[in-house]
Amino acid sequence: MKQRLFTPGPTPLPEEVKLSQAREIVHHRTNQFKQVFQEVEEGLKYVFQTDNDVFLFTSSGTGAMEAAVANLLSPEDEVLVIGGGKFAERWAEIIQAFGGKVNLVDVEWGKGVDPLKVEEGISQNPEIKAVFTQLVETSTGAVYDIEALGRILRKTSTVLVVDAISALCAHPLHTDKWGVDAVIGGSQKALMIPPGLAFVAISEKAWKLVENSTSPKYYWDFKKARNALAKFQTPYTPAVSLIFALRDSLRLLKEEGIERVVNRHAELAKATRKAILAMGLKIFGENPSNVITSVTLPPQIDEKKLRRLMQARFGVQVAGGQDSLAGKIIRIAHLGWTDTSDIIVVISALEMALLELGYSVELGKGLKAAEEVFGESRRYRSR
Amino acid sequence: MKQRLFTPGPTPLPEEVKLSQAREIVHHRTNQFKQVFQEVEEGLKYVFQTDNDVFLFTSSGTGAMEAAVANLLSPEDEVLVIGGGKFAERWAEIIQAFGGKVNLVDVEWGKGVDPLKVEEGISQNPEIKAVFTQLVETSTGAVYDIEALGRILRKTSTVLVVDAISALCAHPLHTDKWGVDAVIGGSQKALMIPPGLAFVAISEKAWKLVENSTSPKYYWDFKKARNALAKFQTPYTPAVSLIFALRDSLRLLKEEGIERVVNRHAELAKATRKAILAMGLKIFGENPSNVITSVTLPPQIDEKKLRRLMQARFGVQVAGGQDSLAGKIIRIAHLGWTDTSDIIVVISALEMALLELGYSVELGKGLKAAEEVFGESRRYRSR
Repeated sequence: MKQRLFTPGPTPLPEEVKLSQAREIVHHRTNQFKQVFQEVEEGLKYVFQTDNDVFLFTSSGTGAMEAAVANLLSPEDEVLVIGGGKFAERWAEIIQAFGGKVNLVDVEWGKGVDPLKVEEGISQNPEIKAVFTQLVETSTGAVYDIEALGRILRKTSTVLVVDAISALCAHPLHTDKWGVDAVIGGSQKALMIPPGLAFVAISEKAWKLVENSTSPKYYWDFKKARNALAKFQTPYTPAVSLIFALRDSLRLLKEEGIERVVNRHAELAKATRKAILAMGLKIFGENPSNVITSVTLPPQIDEKKLRRLMQARFGVQVAGGQDSLAGKIIRIAHLGWTDTSDIIVVISALEMALLELGYSVELGKGLKAAEEVFGESRRYRSR
Repeated sequence: MKQRLFTPGPTPLPEEVKLSQAREIVHHRTNQFKQVFQEVEEGLKYVFQTDNDVFLFTSSGTGAMEAAVANLLSPEDEVLVIGGGKFAERWAEIIQAFGGKVNLVDVEWGKGVDPLKVEEGISQNPEIKAVFTQLVETSTGAVYDIEALGRILRKTSTVLVVDAISALCAHPLHTDKWGVDAVIGGSQKALMIPPGLAFVAISEKAWKLVENSTSPKYYWDFKKARNALAKFQTPYTPAVSLIFALRDSLRLLKEEGIERVVNRHAELAKATRKAILAMGLKIFGENPSNVITSVTLPPQIDEKKLRRLMQARFGVQVAGGQDSLAGKIIRIAHLGWTDTSDIIVVISALEMALLELGYSVELGKGLKAAEEVFGESRRYRSR
């Protein structure tokens, strides 16, 4: 059966990126590899919109989050974590595992953060070394105003650390312009490669924390990563076949242009939201992102049954809710190698599955709304 | 130009393993993935020769070494590290990074360890929680007598931790029979898949240390890994395409049979050593392994020039010496997807390159010696 991924990672892959992995393997201490890695580093700086070093780790995104904590903080350091979802909680858990002291800025799941609350938190506690947050909180779909946080923190010595794992290339992210000191990225999202690589872009302001950090680390050590990167190398053997894939996906992204890539995500997200509303359903939360659309399910609909039906009948895989949202929402990712026809497919599968499960929906209504969005877009009109 | 890898990782890959990576990506929280992961787990237990859990991490082998340290030890714990090479030093560095106290059993590079020295070290210091060593020290090629160490340590509460990253599937390794409590493996060696995955097999004896460990960890947390493994899952998104490749390489290894795989490595190593000696060169060290053959270079031969010439003329890549052995040896790996004809190729390239660089060698002499070893082997004779 044809399978179609609408999960917030892994995401579908372009044919050439899939095949890149099958190349003859290259030894990582050769000039041939260094040339590939140099191109990858330039491509990463482009998509992160930064002149800072971007370190590459062979790991999941969580590994790179741990790397940021282990390199920026020392035990007992005070930090501020912006709440609002499962990945905010992950920041808190990692920081606590490394002996850091977490001050939580409470945010209701699905809502955005009030930048003033962060400003208040910082000014009340001058010991705060860093603020940890998400660009998009993947568990709810909410997008946070990183630009506003950057404006507040750049006047202080406090460092801004942003998990952009799901948001990179799907949302505007101006690392340098916004003054983001550490940005975490992952491979299996809009970067359109399989899981297994993760990234940390790091500013000179953040580097001061790195120099003073006493937390134990070895594999994640930024100092070793920086020394190696100067020679277009990694400290330890990297996932070479994934780096080939990344080189080729970065070429595709550069060719399309990062702004167009982000706009494409914005349009797919808009069409998805309009379709959901046209079907009489509600969007979860207040700050929906370009990454996923979280749909609040009618109380009579069983989330597991719905997802199972969409998968069994149409090969369409969407994500469920996590933790406190389990059973209450589904999450439709429109991320990476996804186009307008994919959105038509997922909306159609949702309409038909909901009808079968007894939810009263007029077939085609969601589809029409999606088509209208695409029809309005200059991108899909003949000139 | 055709490239041929004789480096101790990455190693050449079978065609079907390369192509496995190009498959349509599967979401890691599905039954489809769980079935693959269950087969992988069974295959790993087979090649590790263990009934213990084998945890899989998306990382290089060094990551899994750090995982072992972070999970087994607590700060201030006393350990014994068996020296003798760069990877022994890596154990010491990681342990020290995590606040452990390293007692070194001094071993000259290229030599084996005297098990009595380890017994002595343990009895002199009953605080020693664990002994860290290598099955094969990849920087020298020496193999260590893990069976003897297991015999000593199984009578004590001290845990035996063995880095078998380069040796797995190339050398006999009987994790359970020998009483090895933690074994580290890597993907880009005799497992015949690209770099990016690493493994830790862990005994119940070692699990007691895990339960008491206070070292900070999150990504490497064995407790989370064990809970996830019970459901044929990993705690965080794994490198799915590499897991496909691993499933297929484990099938190949199982089909051949682990003993035959090890014997194949032993024969290739023997032929290489005989060829080297026939060329009038010396094998470095006293305990050469099935993994690599380290060749002591004549003083007039420039290691970098030699390797560059072999690469430029014949596409043959061998490794140089590391740290104190830099410039003094070359290391020829006969590891993974390597056969008798590959050995003929690397010996031929070495003969021709040495002659060109002014070393007096009779062309064909090394090749003849290698052929004689293969001729003696029942494996390559018609029946």
